[in-house]
Amino acid sequence: MKRYLKTVKPDEAIKKVLESVRAIEDAEQLAVYECRGRITAQTLYAKLSNPPFLCAAMDGYAVSFEKTFGADLADPVDLDKADDVIPVNTGDLLPSGMNAVIMVEDVEEYPSRITIRKPVYLWQNVRMIGEDIIEGDMLLPVNHTITAFDIGMIISAGMTHISVRRKPHAAIIPTGRELVDIFKGPLDTSGEPRLIDFNSYTLKNMAEELGYEVHISEIACDKEALRAAVIDALEKNDVILVNAGTSAGREDYTEGIINELGKVVFHGVSMMPGKPAIFGLIKDKPIFGIPGYPVSAAVTFNTFLVPLYEKFMTVKMYKKYLHCVMAYKTPSRVGIEELIRVNLIDNNGAYFAVPLSRGASQFSSMAKADGIVRIPENTEGYEEGEKVSCELLRSEEEIAGRIHIIGSHDLSLDVMRDMVKAGHPGRDLISTHTGSLSGIVALKKGITPLATTHILDEKEKIYNVPAIQRYLPDEAVKLIHIAKRMQGLFVAQGNPKGIRGLADLVRPDIKFVNRQFGSGTRILLDSMLAEEGLEKNTINGYDREESSHTAVGVLVKGSVADAGVGIYSVAKAFSLDFVPLAEEEYDLLVTKKFMDDSRFAILMDIVTSGEFVSRLNDMGGYNTKETGKVKYEQG
Amino acid sequence: MKRYLKTVKPDEAIKKVLESVRAIEDAEQLAVYECRGRITAQTLYAKLSNPPFLCAAMDGYAVSFEKTFGADLADPVDLDKADDVIPVNTGDLLPSGMNAVIMVEDVEEYPSRITIRKPVYLWQNVRMIGEDIIEGDMLLPVNHTITAFDIGMIISAGMTHISVRRKPHAAIIPTGRELVDIFKGPLDTSGEPRLIDFNSYTLKNMAEELGYEVHISEIACDKEALRAAVIDALEKNDVILVNAGTSAGREDYTEGIINELGKVVFHGVSMMPGKPAIFGLIKDKPIFGIPGYPVSAAVTFNTFLVPLYEKFMTVKMYKKYLHCVMAYKTPSRVGIEELIRVNLIDNNGAYFAVPLSRGASQFSSMAKADGIVRIPENTEGYEEGEKVSCELLRSEEEIAGRIHIIGSHDLSLDVMRDMVKAGHPGRDLISTHTGSLSGIVALKKGITPLATTHILDEKEKIYNVPAIQRYLPDEAVKLIHIAKRMQGLFVAQGNPKGIRGLADLVRPDIKFVNRQFGSGTRILLDSMLAEEGLEKNTINGYDREESSHTAVGVLVKGSVADAGVGIYSVAKAFSLDFVPLAEEEYDLLVTKKFMDDSRFAILMDIVTSGEFVSRLNDMGGYNTKETGKVKYEQG
Repeated sequence: MKRYLKTVKPDEAIKKVLESVRAIEDAEQLAVYECRGRITAQTLYAKLSNPPFLCAAMDGYAVSFEKTFGADLADPVDLDKADDVIPVNTGDLLPSGMNAVIMVEDVEEYPSRITIRKPVYLWQNVRMIGEDIIEGDMLLPVNHTITAFDIGMIISAGMTHISVRRKPHAAIIPTGRELVDIFKGPLDTSGEPRLIDFNSYTLKNMAEELGYEVHISEIACDKEALRAAVIDALEKNDVILVNAGTSAGREDYTEGIINELGKVVFHGVSMMPGKPAIFGLIKDKPIFGIPGYPVSAAVTFNTFLVPLYEKFMTVKMYKKYLHCVMAYKTPSRVGIEELIRVNLIDNNGAYFAVPLSRGASQFSSMAKADGIVRIPENTEGYEEGEKVSCELLRSEEEIAGRIHIIGSHDLSLDVMRDMVKAGHPGRDLISTHTGSLSGIVALKKGITPLATTHILDEKEKIYNVPAIQRYLPDEAVKLIHIAKRMQGLFVAQGNPKGIRGLADLVRPDIKFVNRQFGSGTRILLDSMLAEEGLEKNTINGYDREESSHTAVGVLVKGSVADAGVGIYSVAKAFSLDFVPLAEEEYDLLVTKKFMDDSRFAILMDIVTSGEFVSRLNDMGGYNTKETGKVKYEQG
Repeated sequence: MKRYLKTVKPDEAIKKVLESVRAIEDAEQLAVYECRGRITAQTLYAKLSNPPFLCAAMDGYAVSFEKTFGADLADPVDLDKADDVIPVNTGDLLPSGMNAVIMVEDVEEYPSRITIRKPVYLWQNVRMIGEDIIEGDMLLPVNHTITAFDIGMIISAGMTHISVRRKPHAAIIPTGRELVDIFKGPLDTSGEPRLIDFNSYTLKNMAEELGYEVHISEIACDKEALRAAVIDALEKNDVILVNAGTSAGREDYTEGIINELGKVVFHGVSMMPGKPAIFGLIKDKPIFGIPGYPVSAAVTFNTFLVPLYEKFMTVKMYKKYLHCVMAYKTPSRVGIEELIRVNLIDNNGAYFAVPLSRGASQFSSMAKADGIVRIPENTEGYEEGEKVSCELLRSEEEIAGRIHIIGSHDLSLDVMRDMVKAGHPGRDLISTHTGSLSGIVALKKGITPLATTHILDEKEKIYNVPAIQRYLPDEAVKLIHIAKRMQGLFVAQGNPKGIRGLADLVRPDIKFVNRQFGSGTRILLDSMLAEEGLEKNTINGYDREESSHTAVGVLVKGSVADAGVGIYSVAKAFSLDFVPLAEEEYDLLVTKKFMDDSRFAILMDIVTSGEFVSRLNDMGGYNTKETGKVKYEQG
């Protein structure tokens, strides 16, 4: 782990940032209907009363109420159209001398008169001046975030334009020779492979969502370009984000440029991801060096740019927290605050936090995360079952409505998810791929009521049922068959190394890639190797473990490995050759308690549907003859 | 209460609406960075892996790891720059034949070689192909609402444009001869007084916030214009909102036009506000008649246009609910579901619901409301203390951070609120004006820890303290002085009726307007009338009660009354003449328990500040010599 010269703790870092900036006082005049979400720059006082005059509250006849005295069913009162009443519609000014309105429904109409059979009282069916808003009333205080209802209220008080705080302007300057903006040009221009700059767009969207106005500069490829971009951005912006060049490598110019044009306040924050963050001031303007790894970039943004926005605008951005329980032991290094992305599993109102990938380059885990759990600097992490607080990235309602499956990975889970979303608004399916055995264990621990599994019993040659009987003897569960699927060896197109079966894996010229311990695929492989009398240790790469079929596929595709074990549908998706080994059974295990849950009904509707079957068959390598059948139950 | 021909219950009405429309299947291709908040129209699969090739994870030298075997502190290994290593920066393609990267920090540099003192292992400091995302992976299912993080993830998978659902188009057609759009022309063109159309802008903003694309038509002033506007809107929109003309008056054309061009499905919903709502279909397109009273319009929108959006887009818009307790008895008519706007008072995690104005024309109460409490059709309302569920219009965090005062109204409360918002992000001050005595009672009941009061004890001629001793003998409270203020008679400019004092109020030519029972002003008036030996019943208008100084002011200003009692600052704000009667003491009562709350500290900082004093003095009629002093304490 690198050390930086001016490393500070996160709290201290935030304090230093906030100390060095001031609220933005500038305002702009906008049409009121454009102001939703904007912040009042001045106290707003009503220009007019609403309603601005006495007016009819009903369609009917304006009258002086004294003239209606004594009217009743038996003894009606006649009112002359020429002298006594004036027809009015709702919203009309109450004519002078009148002080009530008779509803049109209460009138018997004649050519020159009306007849009424009940009196009206003073001001009946009349809206009083200022009944809602009185001229001069304080409508809204300063620093108020304007809602859709506020807009109606402000317009009702006669105002067309109001003064709102100008948005803070943020410049994002991407840096790095290796980057390309795919919206501006092709990915591979010079034949030199490039990486896509997606951080700039993530940061821009995060910033715009908060309320910043954002401009992304051209990618600065060298120190001179970065210096020029910073100088240019200083003119028009309230804050500058340089991404990245914050580390200590050859081309990490950010710290140097800040020191040259202004001063670095800190470099290095004792948090992970986000450690290499830089903060400095150039001509009193805040400038950040945002780390390049995409998760670090997002975390750094949230750590500093949210409080900065609050300071700029004198507002508070509320965060939501949820109490939850760690589903797995989650160790962490003492001396650094770690931010763990998690998925949350709703278990009847209690939430389990399932940690996602911790790599700072695994940005998809940021998109998948429901929230962030912080492991404080002074602890070695959380134990399984430990109670923690989770900062939410989505609403609790969205999380609570989901279906969560833990266990073995299969592309059919993607199909299920897609079908859940297609037909069930407010629902979603989240799957955590930890392998078959871990899924069964998670179900046993009560973390999830749904697990996917394909564990072969070596002796009985039966899938899943023996494992259930062994690991879950006391659970009331049902086993639902998803599909039989073909497992085999992934090899490069054309099978250049002539791999025909497991026996070829021990050849010294073959690099193999394995699946993780506890996965159904690994169990199958080990069982078949034993049957064929092949020695694991002689396989080159047996120790290299990946945790999904697709991860194995990509390594074979990229020639990092010559062979790996996985399912046919993945080989097909990658256009790899496939050496079939065995057909196995991939099943869904469910607790009987969950079978009353409406979410289970959704899932069963899907797995027993023709669409599901046909989508599996389109992917290839699936045998769907018994898809959706209950294979086994106990308890 | 009017009856309509095809009245239905709210649930049934929603069902009828949803049955008659279908999801919008059209999609549009957008640049990914424009897609935040949009909904995927197709399942998204990764176009590229991320990273798309093996690449350096650090700045340093690419190497074949076998060449570093055996390097250690005592026995370094030299590597030739020409033959053994290739310099790489983070993100560079790993050169062919290399399988690890030595970090630049771990290298001793020489002109033609580097020296290392520890070995690297296979793939060390190398990012694997597809480490984050694998080509062909399902990135997002259909019907997924895209977040800022999703945008980064999609771009990282090599996609620049994706297919998202087209937004549903909604047309708003304002109708009514009496209306004017103040953004398009002056309020009063023809000398005929007009009402401001603000409903259209409220509805537009509510709809845009949800995700509709909205167009407001010209105001349709007669039946022909309305017919033409509807026919025009049918072409380009998925739903049409006609506002209003839904009642049964002379100029209520909406039902007629729908029946002429299509058919009315229902007219009348057994809910309040919103009863006159109309729903129909013209050429299979949904068209609503939205009631004209602004609160009814907003409620009708929320009742129907939110579920309609969900149906159009196959998504779920989550509502938030909070358990709370009714602060006051709230009666309601059997046979109609009533939606009550409420403010919520946080009382250590328990929430009291304080009903706001129930008038459908009081739109400002919609802007002020924290939530909506529904009183079911089959009940006579809620008792004080009854537990209810409240649908939130703002976040619980925002509500919990506020200061809530119940009691007597004074403009100093607006100043306090403005100063709270100016200096304390995340805080706000809400005041409920029920009069002095009600404030004291609310404090006694535990609804609020803060009450404002100006109650004169007739015998002792002392303000507030005797009332506290009488009504709150067992409470530990402090009384903080806000200001002395001048009470007097509001009369028209120039005092045309020559009112010199209370004795003039009994004149037969004088129309008076009173304040409500229990208000400090009423108590003062009654006490002074008794002293002067004047008979209440001889005052014309003594029975007409208003609940704030400003409400009295507006009636005098509008010549509805000739005189009313109120404070000087309001007379000044309305440019009314003022006949002084007495200086009274306006104080803030606080429970001692609340004095430890950080919100109380904020309030005290404000009332003891120079700014507060000077803002009161600017308004006039205040004596601020002892502002902020503790006048009394007990318990």
